[in-house]
Amino acid sequence: MGDAILPLDATDASKSRSARVIEGDILGNFTITKQVKTIKKLLSPLPNERVRTVRCVGFNYAAHDGEAGQPIPGWPILFYKPFTALNTPSDDIPITAGYQTQGNFTSTMDYETELVVVIKKKAFNISDDEALDHVLGYAVGHDVSHRGWQIDRGGQPEPQFSMGKGPDGWAPWGPAIVSTDLIPDPQTLNIWTKVNGVTMQNDTTANMIFGVKHLVSFFSMGTTLLPGDVIFTGTPAGVNLGKANPVWLANGDTVEVGLEDVGTCTNTLRYV
Amino acid sequence: MGDAILPLDATDASKSRSARVIEGDILGNFTITKQVKTIKKLLSPLPNERVRTVRCVGFNYAAHDGEAGQPIPGWPILFYKPFTALNTPSDDIPITAGYQTQGNFTSTMDYETELVVVIKKKAFNISDDEALDHVLGYAVGHDVSHRGWQIDRGGQPEPQFSMGKGPDGWAPWGPAIVSTDLIPDPQTLNIWTKVNGVTMQNDTTANMIFGVKHLVSFFSMGTTLLPGDVIFTGTPAGVNLGKANPVWLANGDTVEVGLEDVGTCTNTLRYV
Repeated sequence: MGDAILPLDATDASKSRSARVIEGDILGNFTITKQVKTIKKLLSPLPNERVRTVRCVGFNYAAHDGEAGQPIPGWPILFYKPFTALNTPSDDIPITAGYQTQGNFTSTMDYETELVVVIKKKAFNISDDEALDHVLGYAVGHDVSHRGWQIDRGGQPEPQFSMGKGPDGWAPWGPAIVSTDLIPDPQTLNIWTKVNGVTMQNDTTANMIFGVKHLVSFFSMGTTLLPGDVIFTGTPAGVNLGKANPVWLANGDTVEVGLEDVGTCTNTLRYV
Repeated sequence: MGDAILPLDATDASKSRSARVIEGDILGNFTITKQVKTIKKLLSPLPNERVRTVRCVGFNYAAHDGEAGQPIPGWPILFYKPFTALNTPSDDIPITAGYQTQGNFTSTMDYETELVVVIKKKAFNISDDEALDHVLGYAVGHDVSHRGWQIDRGGQPEPQFSMGKGPDGWAPWGPAIVSTDLIPDPQTLNIWTKVNGVTMQNDTTANMIFGVKHLVSFFSMGTTLLPGDVIFTGTPAGVNLGKANPVWLANGDTVEVGLEDVGTCTNTLRYV
């Protein structure tokens, strides 16, 4: 496990080569020391063991709902990934045999870039107005998705997304958690995806149907959100799902997911 | 946190008044000591913190799929509950304001009794034949469900079940974990539900569409299952969902969920 650190590149931690060491618990009391270390490799902003629950939101940008043939939801659509799906901002995304093209079965791998919310303190039945007091900060995340397992094989007519989004390493996130002190309003950020360097998604979090405040309060309805829980808040338009001629991600494709004022994660799909 | 114990009533731990103390880690190396203690209250068979991921299966008994108007699935339908949903075999099931009847919104609370599988050792891409080597034993569980949040408000036309099944305390389980040594074949067990003493579900695990072996191997596809993970394996026919005249569970209703050779959990719904 690496140190808790404050990367010193202010605009994209993934480009930082040095960082200040943080002592204590970033989910509790901590001190940013003056000790500077060289970054060999950025790990996930929290060790996987500290993330108890990974929540995700479906169909939370109107233009994405349109491309996917979905109505605008009346309430946030919640699903989960197991914490074992979490991945670093730079490691490969492993695609095991069951998700690879085999016979008539196509490996319908797709990208989804999302703003990620990190919970700082316990939340239970809180209001929208209270929500940001429970948030530590934001990262960018990649909700890696296999559309065949997500929809066709996920169960009809009520597909559960779990098999299509849950494998190990299918939720890269990072490159750091940017504090709410630095991003007072999370609904103003440019968000983008590049596949092998070509821009595929490019939108703003202003277009989220349900914003961060409401997602946190809504998910706390009768349910305790814990420090270290993360929420992937849904993806904008521009994915392959719904395209007449989708170009599914292939072995060796590299996906950069980016969020303004936060940074990027860059991971390569790898058949294993 | 209570001791790890071996309750001494062989047919239903929930009726045991004494137990032998287990030393060590029931997910690792342990010894059943000769020390006998009186049981004040049975807690969950594992402390919540030891359960990293709660997997659940939808529509896994053909007669239930029929009553719910669902086709027989081609692959197991996986969804998750957060671990905070876990509950003891006897505590109340809390129903907070957002799930109570309010105005035109009906509290469509329903019961689902399920065989619960407890994972003993790490599983990744294992075969059906290897699956039971990774299982510690079985419990009975209650997949408490609010049909309105599960379906109508869970997102249309692809409802995610999460909001309808995830609140704190909505997954009682227990009363103990019965070892695979004592239940070599989990597909032979009577399973039942009583609401306020009246039998509402009564079936056998022989009728599961996908049995325990296949569920464990299937969910390990590209995904690491960890010691302490639990799998709720789906419910038989007899729930309210799909009934012409459903009798939704009300404040104060008591639900007993039972599994042959394992025992019962008895919990009361309580508006809080």
